[in-house]
Amino acid sequence: MNDLASLVEAVKPIEERIALMAAERQAGLAKPQGSLGRLETLGAQLAAIARTCPPPAITKPGLIIAAGDHGVHAQGVSPWPQEITTLMVETMAAGRASANAIAAACGVDVTVLDAGVAKPPAAHLQVRSAGVRGGTRDLRVEPAMTEAECTAAVLAGAAVAADLIDDGADLIALGDMGIANTTPAAALIAAFTGGTPEQVTGRGTGIDDRTLQLKTEVVGAALARHGDDREPLSVLASLGGLEHAALAGVALAAASRRIPVILDGVNTVASALAAAALCPNAIGYFIAGHRSVEPGATVGLDHLGLKPLLDLELRLGEGTGALLAVPIVRSAAAVLRGVAGLDELGV
Amino acid sequence: MNDLASLVEAVKPIEERIALMAAERQAGLAKPQGSLGRLETLGAQLAAIARTCPPPAITKPGLIIAAGDHGVHAQGVSPWPQEITTLMVETMAAGRASANAIAAACGVDVTVLDAGVAKPPAAHLQVRSAGVRGGTRDLRVEPAMTEAECTAAVLAGAAVAADLIDDGADLIALGDMGIANTTPAAALIAAFTGGTPEQVTGRGTGIDDRTLQLKTEVVGAALARHGDDREPLSVLASLGGLEHAALAGVALAAASRRIPVILDGVNTVASALAAAALCPNAIGYFIAGHRSVEPGATVGLDHLGLKPLLDLELRLGEGTGALLAVPIVRSAAAVLRGVAGLDELGV
Repeated sequence: MNDLASLVEAVKPIEERIALMAAERQAGLAKPQGSLGRLETLGAQLAAIARTCPPPAITKPGLIIAAGDHGVHAQGVSPWPQEITTLMVETMAAGRASANAIAAACGVDVTVLDAGVAKPPAAHLQVRSAGVRGGTRDLRVEPAMTEAECTAAVLAGAAVAADLIDDGADLIALGDMGIANTTPAAALIAAFTGGTPEQVTGRGTGIDDRTLQLKTEVVGAALARHGDDREPLSVLASLGGLEHAALAGVALAAASRRIPVILDGVNTVASALAAAALCPNAIGYFIAGHRSVEPGATVGLDHLGLKPLLDLELRLGEGTGALLAVPIVRSAAAVLRGVAGLDELGV
Repeated sequence: MNDLASLVEAVKPIEERIALMAAERQAGLAKPQGSLGRLETLGAQLAAIARTCPPPAITKPGLIIAAGDHGVHAQGVSPWPQEITTLMVETMAAGRASANAIAAACGVDVTVLDAGVAKPPAAHLQVRSAGVRGGTRDLRVEPAMTEAECTAAVLAGAAVAADLIDDGADLIALGDMGIANTTPAAALIAAFTGGTPEQVTGRGTGIDDRTLQLKTEVVGAALARHGDDREPLSVLASLGGLEHAALAGVALAAASRRIPVILDGVNTVASALAAAALCPNAIGYFIAGHRSVEPGATVGLDHLGLKPLLDLELRLGEGTGALLAVPIVRSAAAVLRGVAGLDELGV
């Protein structure tokens, strides 16, 4: 898929008819009707995504963590130096970040994409690179990316997802890393949902009241600078990050291949909103992994009509909350595939 | 452990000092402080249970499903015939129940204990048997068990847990099966928490309003019949089921071996309340896997001071909600063990 229009075109609606078949099948299994609650609706969604009931077993889930840096860091919206993005990418590539620990515990493979880190990670590490640019411009004062740069980042993410899926990945979890990236995430969520800067801006890594006020003002100023244009690519390029663009591409590529996508925290929700704006058909493929503490995440999930599976007060990113939801999704498929029918019991 | 007093005596308090060490370690890991939310408190609990920080990796979690039948079934509290208990035990032993599907998806071994099923399961199936009696007496009209029978069931559960732990199990999830067992569960929860029959009685497999009213009356009548005696073993014998007694034994044996215990729905919460009444030290070993739809589960968890990890609207039992929490617990240990320190990053 080497252009955005073809990628969007390739995403077909999920088949609600198959979801109904799955619901019927659930009702005939050896358990009280409806007793598996949200696991049953999740199983029906997996069937509708795969266009087959029971849905396929989930045997090779993959997490894609996209990392990027942000020109808006210069505004003082984060207390952390930008170099942390590079250090954390290197830590992930070395298998020593939170995402790696949780991925191993949940049986998920990790892929790291340098979607646009300012200082490139050590060359010997296994990190793919989008090769677009080393961080965005300052979205408070100018568009963060040109539309061409943004499109290139989307397609780079899509290419990574396509490679994983070619290699057997049957579930894709989204993860992010990027110092200051909750600022563009908030701006994207405000633009795509109509939320106010106050509603969507949060404390990110844990900033103080004064920095939160500054950050909220920066989000407001960026939205004012961007203006009323709501064309999806224009919004994403103007207010987003390279990792947000890349993850939107990951989501679209997975959806185009009928693979479910698990969202993580506020940054992946911003990416999902961008993907959904570009291609409303994609929403049916999305599963909300968890409810982040970051307020914009809930605003975005509500806009997408998604209810998170977990609420464990996480606010880390890296895909950590999406990873923890993987066994739940795997279980939902397993129930539809493996549980005996009431008829087999002779009841 | 061949008597109850020794079993209770063997459960030592968890070490809060080690939990503080774990919290300190979390604060020094390569992530924003506190950003893994409840995963961090869970990791600290695991360290306090194991008396070592980082806690050991969880590599061989086991689910023990205890099954039993109930004399109170004769009161019409469930629309399902009692034979379903036997059929479901056979389905579990054949690997075809919901618990088996979810256990496989979450990497957990399943052990089935016939704690007191009325009609014994097919002899060729790998099901352990407590060998106490084939179902309880009707708790509405007389004590469900003698104290000797109840103690034997507790010790049978403890023996199964001890065998699993000897075989390497490092986390124990509790599961139950028993037609009509939400009635004794409600009675136990009312007796141990002081809740009213109306507060603790729910729809179980999905009974109608009229059956719910009858069931609530039966719970009230059983409590009145039992009277004011709150001696833990007396309450458990009088109002409980053989599977509740067995699971209390499983929980105590795991705690005595410093192994964490994940609770499932209302029946396992009733067992946990009994275990906690027999041995308050045991509470520190308990992790609430999920919030069951059944109202008594929340009353019981509140009484124990436990907040569930998941809320997926499950009401099946069999350990299904406990199983889904296993990867979260495994992840909490993995973070403390595997994530790089900030010092290693040179920050």
